[in-house]
Amino acid sequence: MIIVMEPHAIPVQIEQVCKKLEEKGFQFHLSRGVERTIIGAIGQRTPSTMELFETLPGVEKVVPIAQPFKMASREFKPEDTVIQVGQQTVGGGQIQIIAGPCAVEGRSKYLEVAQAVKEAGATMLRGGAFKPRTSPYSFQGLEHEGLEILAEARELTGLPVVTEIMDPRLVDEVASYVDILQVGARNMQNFFLLRELGKAQRPVLLKRGPSATIEEWIMAAEYIISSGNDQVIMCERGIRSFENYTRNTLDLSAVPLIKQLTHLPIIVDPSHGTGKWKLVEPMALAAVGAGADGVMVEVHQNPSEALSDGPQSLTPENFARMVKRVRSMVMALLAAEEN
Amino acid sequence: MIIVMEPHAIPVQIEQVCKKLEEKGFQFHLSRGVERTIIGAIGQRTPSTMELFETLPGVEKVVPIAQPFKMASREFKPEDTVIQVGQQTVGGGQIQIIAGPCAVEGRSKYLEVAQAVKEAGATMLRGGAFKPRTSPYSFQGLEHEGLEILAEARELTGLPVVTEIMDPRLVDEVASYVDILQVGARNMQNFFLLRELGKAQRPVLLKRGPSATIEEWIMAAEYIISSGNDQVIMCERGIRSFENYTRNTLDLSAVPLIKQLTHLPIIVDPSHGTGKWKLVEPMALAAVGAGADGVMVEVHQNPSEALSDGPQSLTPENFARMVKRVRSMVMALLAAEEN
Amino acid sequence: MIIVMEPHAIPVQIEQVCKKLEEKGFQFHLSRGVERTIIGAIGQRTPSTMELFETLPGVEKVVPIAQPFKMASREFKPEDTVIQVGQQTVGGGQIQIIAGPCAVEGRSKYLEVAQAVKEAGATMLRGGAFKPRTSPYSFQGLEHEGLEILAEARELTGLPVVTEIMDPRLVDEVASYVDILQVGARNMQNFFLLRELGKAQRPVLLKRGPSATIEEWIMAAEYIISSGNDQVIMCERGIRSFENYTRNTLDLSAVPLIKQLTHLPIIVDPSHGTGKWKLVEPMALAAVGAGADGVMVEVHQNPSEALSDGPQSLTPENFARMVKRVRSMVMALLAAEEN
Amino acid sequence: MIIVMEPHAIPVQIEQVCKKLEEKGFQFHLSRGVERTIIGAIGQRTPSTMELFETLPGVEKVVPIAQPFKMASREFKPEDTVIQVGQQTVGGGQIQIIAGPCAVEGRSKYLEVAQAVKEAGATMLRGGAFKPRTSPYSFQGLEHEGLEILAEARELTGLPVVTEIMDPRLVDEVASYVDILQVGARNMQNFFLLRELGKAQRPVLLKRGPSATIEEWIMAAEYIISSGNDQVIMCERGIRSFENYTRNTLDLSAVPLIKQLTHLPIIVDPSHGTGKWKLVEPMALAAVGAGADGVMVEVHQNPSEALSDGPQSLTPENFARMVKRVRSMVMALLAAEEN
Repeated sequence: MIIVMEPHAIPVQIEQVCKKLEEKGFQFHLSRGVERTIIGAIGQRTPSTMELFETLPGVEKVVPIAQPFKMASREFKPEDTVIQVGQQTVGGGQIQIIAGPCAVEGRSKYLEVAQAVKEAGATMLRGGAFKPRTSPYSFQGLEHEGLEILAEARELTGLPVVTEIMDPRLVDEVASYVDILQVGARNMQNFFLLRELGKAQRPVLLKRGPSATIEEWIMAAEYIISSGNDQVIMCERGIRSFENYTRNTLDLSAVPLIKQLTHLPIIVDPSHGTGKWKLVEPMALAAVGAGADGVMVEVHQNPSEALSDGPQSLTPENFARMVKRVRSMVMALLAAEEN
Repeated sequence: MIIVMEPHAIPVQIEQVCKKLEEKGFQFHLSRGVERTIIGAIGQRTPSTMELFETLPGVEKVVPIAQPFKMASREFKPEDTVIQVGQQTVGGGQIQIIAGPCAVEGRSKYLEVAQAVKEAGATMLRGGAFKPRTSPYSFQGLEHEGLEILAEARELTGLPVVTEIMDPRLVDEVASYVDILQVGARNMQNFFLLRELGKAQRPVLLKRGPSATIEEWIMAAEYIISSGNDQVIMCERGIRSFENYTRNTLDLSAVPLIKQLTHLPIIVDPSHGTGKWKLVEPMALAAVGAGADGVMVEVHQNPSEALSDGPQSLTPENFARMVKRVRSMVMALLAAEEN
Repeated sequence: MIIVMEPHAIPVQIEQVCKKLEEKGFQFHLSRGVERTIIGAIGQRTPSTMELFETLPGVEKVVPIAQPFKMASREFKPEDTVIQVGQQTVGGGQIQIIAGPCAVEGRSKYLEVAQAVKEAGATMLRGGAFKPRTSPYSFQGLEHEGLEILAEARELTGLPVVTEIMDPRLVDEVASYVDILQVGARNMQNFFLLRELGKAQRPVLLKRGPSATIEEWIMAAEYIISSGNDQVIMCERGIRSFENYTRNTLDLSAVPLIKQLTHLPIIVDPSHGTGKWKLVEPMALAAVGAGADGVMVEVHQNPSEALSDGPQSLTPENFARMVKRVRSMVMALLAAEEN
Repeated sequence: MIIVMEPHAIPVQIEQVCKKLEEKGFQFHLSRGVERTIIGAIGQRTPSTMELFETLPGVEKVVPIAQPFKMASREFKPEDTVIQVGQQTVGGGQIQIIAGPCAVEGRSKYLEVAQAVKEAGATMLRGGAFKPRTSPYSFQGLEHEGLEILAEARELTGLPVVTEIMDPRLVDEVASYVDILQVGARNMQNFFLLRELGKAQRPVLLKRGPSATIEEWIMAAEYIISSGNDQVIMCERGIRSFENYTRNTLDLSAVPLIKQLTHLPIIVDPSHGTGKWKLVEPMALAAVGAGADGVMVEVHQNPSEALSDGPQSLTPENFARMVKRVRSMVMALLAAEEN
């Protein structure tokens, strides 16, 4: 980190900073300019040590240099993380297409749509058993019954299943039913949950919080990895901006950024990212153009009967069309790569 | 709600909407204009029913009319909620000044600062035993030991104590030590936690999430109230905007808005709201000017030694000056009221 | 528009609203519910008429129904606008690749890079003669000399040229040198400038303001069109959000949205949209995936010598690679379309 | 500025940076750590020089240290700027209350409201002759006739007048009619206009752009000051955030920040800042609590007849009540100061 002294900092203030740096085990160098002194400090920085130095008298600001994440960083592990899920991989060049309804609403309906999306080209299934809803008066999910249905759909189709987990008390139970545990956007900084997931034996799909910076999102991955589980899949699903024609603002530049800063795979959810089914296909194509390892989309037989997120759900027919176009694009990009 | 049909919606589409409205128990009226038909529907709306109608063919959009919250609303309960905490009240004209360090860092240090803020005019104590930290490598709180220290400080000073709770499994334990249970900004939509707090016998201080709209924040209060606990204190602590000179953007217009839309008291946290101690006093005065029922500020004997949030902590001396100015302003506003 | 009365609005207040609606030439229908009355009004709405009704006693809120733009809307003109520029078209299936340095820095350098981008596949040239700079101490452009150089490059390469115009006094002069007049993001709501451009005989490339909603952006196009010039090309270049790893947040969902709401072509600027050259190629591919009619990118022979925007500029080599990949993707999407 | 080299930067890259620093006249010091080298450089930085170094091979990032503004900064001029307007001052302890309708709508109406606000305690008048409107179909102002009316109101009441200027061609004309020239939020970065205002002999009231950072706003002031006019009054009027219960999010922490970073006075506009008249009084009180040098509010005899901004306009009665409460608060704060 760099410690920038105020223009009129006096020698005793500079000495005090240096003394404190020594105490904390930092190496440092002073640059004395005409106007002010700048101290370059090298050592183990945490957000707290930065705050500590910011409050010392005569210090104007403290500038972080190294990234605060370690185990998630590309520098820590230069090669891509490739996550095995059943016979498929997330990362490593495969494009995953995860599809299904927002919520599991009933056994026969779910099994039907699971079959339909499989036939249309989905490679994994999604469906919520526990639903975080803004209103206490909305449908909150089938809970345990939903997990049973997901397990049956997985059996029937042979496709891996992703579902959201919200309560740290339920990690083991949910993990016994599904293949990938999803952390929803609202829980991205539920640190008790992240730590429990660090002990789970399942890959975790970590959605970006609607107001999370790229750095905070990677730090949430760092919680999981540093607790013991390095099977983390990032998922961009839109951030909150002033624009409200769309439900969220899908930040696709996160895709190449996550690939540069970390070794983790990343998929994109254009259904939550836009909130409008007419935007799902173009944004799925855009996501693959940006380099994503897959997309996760909501599909419902009859969106106008869906108990949640109907307006952003594709019908199986629209979904089939999207899959076809995504596959063409992937082929073209691969071909361009090889030439 | 209002259902706006597309300009070229055909009669059969309009009929389908009307039929569905009947099914769901809505009363409705059609306005047929030259360009389009608009349907006013009156009945029990949830976000899900809106979504349902949005997906019917021929529907352009669905516009909510009534607010989605009920028990938190001013219409449901026209008089102000006044919350008794020990011998004081939150709401009802009193101005609470809640002070203390961000985290409880040790017994003697905490007891010392608790005494100091009491002498300077604090009416309640704050201090974190469990700390949600962006980095897994930062200090995470003294946990159970911290609760014991808080209880001792309460005994010593006679002041009520506020502390954050993050894990739904710990509600009973934490409630047995402190007077007010705080929901941190990152957990505002941790619905499992909110529901547990709805069963607690303690007032809840509900911080606004950094990307929560006023409506979502009130819906979080609605979760707690509808689960059985109507002792909710709202706390504005800044929202995330593009501006980054300050840690957050303190949205003081939330103060009069919460008073207009709900019957709940509201306090303001200018320490987290700005992230800079030099801004804490002016923003505390501003909060009281805006009509807040109190402020919550961070105070530390030695901010440069604080294990968290040092840069936004006042010293006891600065805090004493702030209390004095806040008290003068409150008097002046009351005097203006009476004339 | 819909006028929602307060729950306790009294009959005389409702009558007053109806009387005012009559005065202003609106047709209207009342829906009287148990809780409140809702009035659907059909007629010529402007933002001002909405405001007028919002201030009448007993009115809770006024909800707009019809879009405030007319001549830019897809309903006004269902077929796509295709803009002829030299022998090319913007819109109508062609993908334009507009390239060049941020600023024209000198004659020989500009002519050299113009040739280089042409050889690499650019279809139009860009370059700033007048530069809006945040700091009064930064390079402000070669101004009139820059225009001469642009005209020479156009002669030399045969490619059309785009340049920014900021001062309403200079529209005629700039239009005499270049093919497309660009409105920069900071001037999107410079209404005097927009009106002057409405009288120009040149297509206008209208960049989205960093905090402009989709609706405000289309309203800016409406200013130009309603002043007499319907040759408007929209350009998404990123909005301002809390994320600051990137210079702006490129909102690619604007691409399909503009195509749904208006008849205008839209291109994307991933250089300003991200601020980092390493993100330019992935985001250009994403833009084309989303359905954009082209991309505009910054290219500089030697980015580390550029007088502005170096960090987001591609070298001619990187640009050539991008063009190749974009072209492959376009082919694949067309092929998928035809099957 | 600080130049941070990549972890694996090679010696020749470091040398190249140093050579370039020398060329540009910077002094510099190297800090070689185990992981990376950091270069502290002291000299004249502009945004462009930062960009230049960012593009050199081996450079990871460039961190600004000194603020980019000079003449506006507190360091350049430690004492407060106090601006004389007629017999009053903006800054220097006086609290200005600027009031009037959004737009001048007609002679007799304007003169009437001008008298009314004077009697209620306004110290200056406001009113728009040129109105920037989002829609080309809204009322655009009385233009030159409006200026004549403003001059007459100033004669009649003896109060100074503030009005907005949008077109750089009209600076001299507008300055001949009014006392303070206002730059509207949408024109904060209209650099041609700012430079013209730098040559004017009138104070400039510079509104913050809805998406402008504090730094960009101060840079806009720097444009005016560096062009020759140091009579700049800053005006906070809300920034754009995701919250849309209010028209904008009034960022009151800007008040103490501007006072710390610059020597300029600052006033607050709670009418545009909130968009709702019921929030104007509490936010005016909050602004004064935060330390503002005044407030600017919209007052209209009959808000429901206003041609613009009716919903945020106070009636003269509400305005009188606000003035009374603001005055009491100012007295109390002064009294607290003296004790």
